[in-house]
Amino acid sequence: MGRLILDISMSLDGFVAGPNPTSKDPLGEGGTQLHEWAFATRAWRESHGLEGGEDNVDSKLVEDLLANVGATVMGRRMYSGNEGPWADDANADGWWGDEPPFHHPVFVLTHHERQPVRMQGGTSFTFVTDGIEAALEQAQRAAGEQDVRVAGGANAAQQYLRAGLLDELQLHVAPVLLGDGVRLFEGGLLEPPAQLECTAVARSPTGVAHLIYRARG
Amino acid sequence: MGRLILDISMSLDGFVAGPNPTSKDPLGEGGTQLHEWAFATRAWRESHGLEGGEDNVDSKLVEDLLANVGATVMGRRMYSGNEGPWADDANADGWWGDEPPFHHPVFVLTHHERQPVRMQGGTSFTFVTDGIEAALEQAQRAAGEQDVRVAGGANAAQQYLRAGLLDELQLHVAPVLLGDGVRLFEGGLLEPPAQLECTAVARSPTGVAHLIYRARG
Repeated sequence: MGRLILDISMSLDGFVAGPNPTSKDPLGEGGTQLHEWAFATRAWRESHGLEGGEDNVDSKLVEDLLANVGATVMGRRMYSGNEGPWADDANADGWWGDEPPFHHPVFVLTHHERQPVRMQGGTSFTFVTDGIEAALEQAQRAAGEQDVRVAGGANAAQQYLRAGLLDELQLHVAPVLLGDGVRLFEGGLLEPPAQLECTAVARSPTGVAHLIYRARG
Repeated sequence: MGRLILDISMSLDGFVAGPNPTSKDPLGEGGTQLHEWAFATRAWRESHGLEGGEDNVDSKLVEDLLANVGATVMGRRMYSGNEGPWADDANADGWWGDEPPFHHPVFVLTHHERQPVRMQGGTSFTFVTDGIEAALEQAQRAAGEQDVRVAGGANAAQQYLRAGLLDELQLHVAPVLLGDGVRLFEGGLLEPPAQLECTAVARSPTGVAHLIYRARG
């Protein structure tokens, strides 16, 4: 069975989204800056069907991560920007287009049941209503020997972190202060606290500090 | 004129002291863990008149920092653990012993006037009551061509950070989650926001991630 990996971009002051996130601007004010390092890489662009991009340490990280991921778990807001019943969701088909960049099974955490959706290019969306452990189980079954990635957003990331279910945490620290927003580390300690081991650090040409931790529940 | 450097140890979840700091335990619950990497180094031990210690990337960082620092600024709590009038402070001579580990002029931010104190080994304590900029000015005059270091605590560090006066920020991120405590990055954004440039990262054998930023107010 593969590992459960959270890889997430964070400002130096600890925010994974800026203030006032909305369904149209889920990264909040200034939040896009956190992800610019990834958008610029060849590996990210390739996974989105785009040409070009930088071929550097950032791209290598994205490439290594994507190569080993067999399934993704994400929160409902990351899927469609909304959280209510599907009938009220103008964006119910997600904002990932006809050929989403995942190319493997994606499990969406939601409170509202719905039949799975099969997209072009190997991506499917399965809607899981019975919690993060059930979603992880399904994702691990789908991924086989490959890893499962928690793609976000902040709330899903926090839930897996707090439950002590992560095997690896990849923090991409952008050289930016947002001052306010959604913190990754918020709301108290895990019980028992996760044991973290820093296994690698790297600095990218764009000034992002990549910190890799092995977590042992 | 030298640079103004803040070097501070922080937990991965952003805390520079644990919860419930007291005058006897100013690092708060669990806060000592943040500093263990430094305590173990040869360079730190040497500056405290102790033998032995590890000679590794951690020690090199401490050594380089100390070699270039000609004056230190610190908050009153870091000096004596208290904040009231000196007459009420049982610890008014500080808790740094007869021969403090600084070996240069130290400027203490306080609301209560007091004559300077000269200690053994080259350390003096000067008490500055007219704010962080006045303390910085005095420290820079004392340091000459050498750097000035903001030694802490969190409050003094935040004031210099928020005022945009830092030239360099050295963050030592310990592989620890404290869950609660005193955050370095708290209380909103600088105005205008500091421009940060990540100039170096390093991982120590103890799992600490050292992140060095150049700040351009």
